[in-house]
Amino acid sequence: MSLDETRVKPHERLAEVLADDLSAVNALIRERMASKHAPRIPEVTAHLVEAGGKRLRPILTLAAARLCGYEGADHVKLAATVEFIHTATLLHDDVVDESAKRRGRPTANLLWDNKSSVLVGDYLFARAFQLMTEPGNLRVLHILSNAAATIAEGEVLQLTAAQDLSTTEEIYLQVVRGKTAALFSAATEVGGVIAGRSAEEVQALFDYGDALGIAFQIVDDLLDYWGSDATGKNIGDDFRERKLTLPLIKAYAAADDTEKAFWKRVIEKGDQQDGDLEHALELLNKHGALEATRQEALAWAAKAKAAMETLPKGELRDLLIGVNDYVVERVN
Amino acid sequence: MSLDETRVKPHERLAEVLADDLSAVNALIRERMASKHAPRIPEVTAHLVEAGGKRLRPILTLAAARLCGYEGADHVKLAATVEFIHTATLLHDDVVDESAKRRGRPTANLLWDNKSSVLVGDYLFARAFQLMTEPGNLRVLHILSNAAATIAEGEVLQLTAAQDLSTTEEIYLQVVRGKTAALFSAATEVGGVIAGRSAEEVQALFDYGDALGIAFQIVDDLLDYWGSDATGKNIGDDFRERKLTLPLIKAYAAADDTEKAFWKRVIEKGDQQDGDLEHALELLNKHGALEATRQEALAWAAKAKAAMETLPKGELRDLLIGVNDYVVERVN
Repeated sequence: MSLDETRVKPHERLAEVLADDLSAVNALIRERMASKHAPRIPEVTAHLVEAGGKRLRPILTLAAARLCGYEGADHVKLAATVEFIHTATLLHDDVVDESAKRRGRPTANLLWDNKSSVLVGDYLFARAFQLMTEPGNLRVLHILSNAAATIAEGEVLQLTAAQDLSTTEEIYLQVVRGKTAALFSAATEVGGVIAGRSAEEVQALFDYGDALGIAFQIVDDLLDYWGSDATGKNIGDDFRERKLTLPLIKAYAAADDTEKAFWKRVIEKGDQQDGDLEHALELLNKHGALEATRQEALAWAAKAKAAMETLPKGELRDLLIGVNDYVVERVN
Repeated sequence: MSLDETRVKPHERLAEVLADDLSAVNALIRERMASKHAPRIPEVTAHLVEAGGKRLRPILTLAAARLCGYEGADHVKLAATVEFIHTATLLHDDVVDESAKRRGRPTANLLWDNKSSVLVGDYLFARAFQLMTEPGNLRVLHILSNAAATIAEGEVLQLTAAQDLSTTEEIYLQVVRGKTAALFSAATEVGGVIAGRSAEEVQALFDYGDALGIAFQIVDDLLDYWGSDATGKNIGDDFRERKLTLPLIKAYAAADDTEKAFWKRVIEKGDQQDGDLEHALELLNKHGALEATRQEALAWAAKAKAAMETLPKGELRDLLIGVNDYVVERVN
């Protein structure tokens, strides 16, 4: 770690700078997660929304809009929209992954049941669509509804690619663009759109969000093999779930026949025994798969930084670049 | 049955009259259920979409628009939107109900898995939202996104009301308005909105769809205790799933202490034995709960018919009234 851990992190500093906007987002989220008839909805939603998530995606929308000089109030609605979409996907992801923990607490599917997670997720999707229509901006609707479709497509692709050793780096990138980067890039892009900025600047905001999201997910996948208690990740979750993430794809591409047989047994057949994770880590290191994955994360982070060049200079731009640096610093 | 079973049913005749529009809807559904990256999506969707559903909801949108003199092409997009929302809710419902059969075929959650049903449902929701933005009509977006929220809210309410004998007729009506009537009323209302009709006529179309949807669901719940092979329903599914539908709510309200103890055992505790369904049917008949439920369905059907009074006379209006009559004829 090259960061002084006691220093305020860039996304925390952004939350301070945008404190008024962010309180408005939180108030709107609480207001709209209510349900006149079904108290189960705010119960389940609150469990997740108030579990201390970083609010990274809505902060990106707020920061992008303010960076572009936006002075209206619609960015608050769009930031809440983005957080609702994110929360809905988390609820459904935990059902799909049969997860027991999220943000250090038992998941909603465990505390209530899968049914509640599916249906409350649907409610939050619908709430997101209600919210996004309110500014009456058709381009924003286009961007956010496309993002929702891309997210679901990425999740399905991930599902069908799991346990499939023929998954390529290209497919991995499509999964990552879907499950993670699509919402990051939509979050930043709509900030520029409601501020009425030029096509070039809106594209730059999209490119920043896209590259940031990809770097974020690659780092997340890397930490699954490289983590420590400090990162809050459990080493080997993806291995046990037989997910084809970038480190594994790279190691399999470089594998000899004996190694290929090992990967087929543990990933395709799911026959995992004591010591297999350790052997997998040895193979990942042997072929430099972790280092190569880290380099890709750094390359995407550099793209995100470069995209910011065309946007107005100032503290917000510096902080957005800082968020990007922080994402990759976790593996520096 | 008072209907000659060989006669063309009103919704089938509507499908004939609107054949060109309906082929355009089907073509659009096939086009938009595709996915460039994830072939699992069209596989799962086709299994349901091509299983011979009646396309009742999209037909309502087409008929409402044409009845109102609409001559554009956006009604096709909105009809496909409505069918996508319906299909998404079916996929999620089958996960929530752990169903094994739908439209006489194994459900998607059984043929693939719950994960695919959840994620493909999400994809279809997102596709629906993409489609509904295309006509660029903010009022339509408002109506359809509200309907989506009301549907999810109704489903959650149904989930929390299941096994709860304190469920009132008022709560039952809220569930039914959510899970069924909200999409019917949105389907007819948007037809009037895109045709630019008066507030009074748009309200009448909403009222028709609302009452038709409520009648439809009450009949469906009644047939669960009153069905035969001819209706394609299995008697007692709701009883076994311990759902609080109108017949049961009415019978419980009229129950003496011995009967209440019976209902508590079979519905609240879920302790069901041989002969319990037969005894439940006896109690439903003893208190006239089935007949009272049938009368409520007929009253809602009459409301649907009355709502049509203000709309332009002609074959389409007659056929829409005919659909309504057909819904209740199933229990006449």
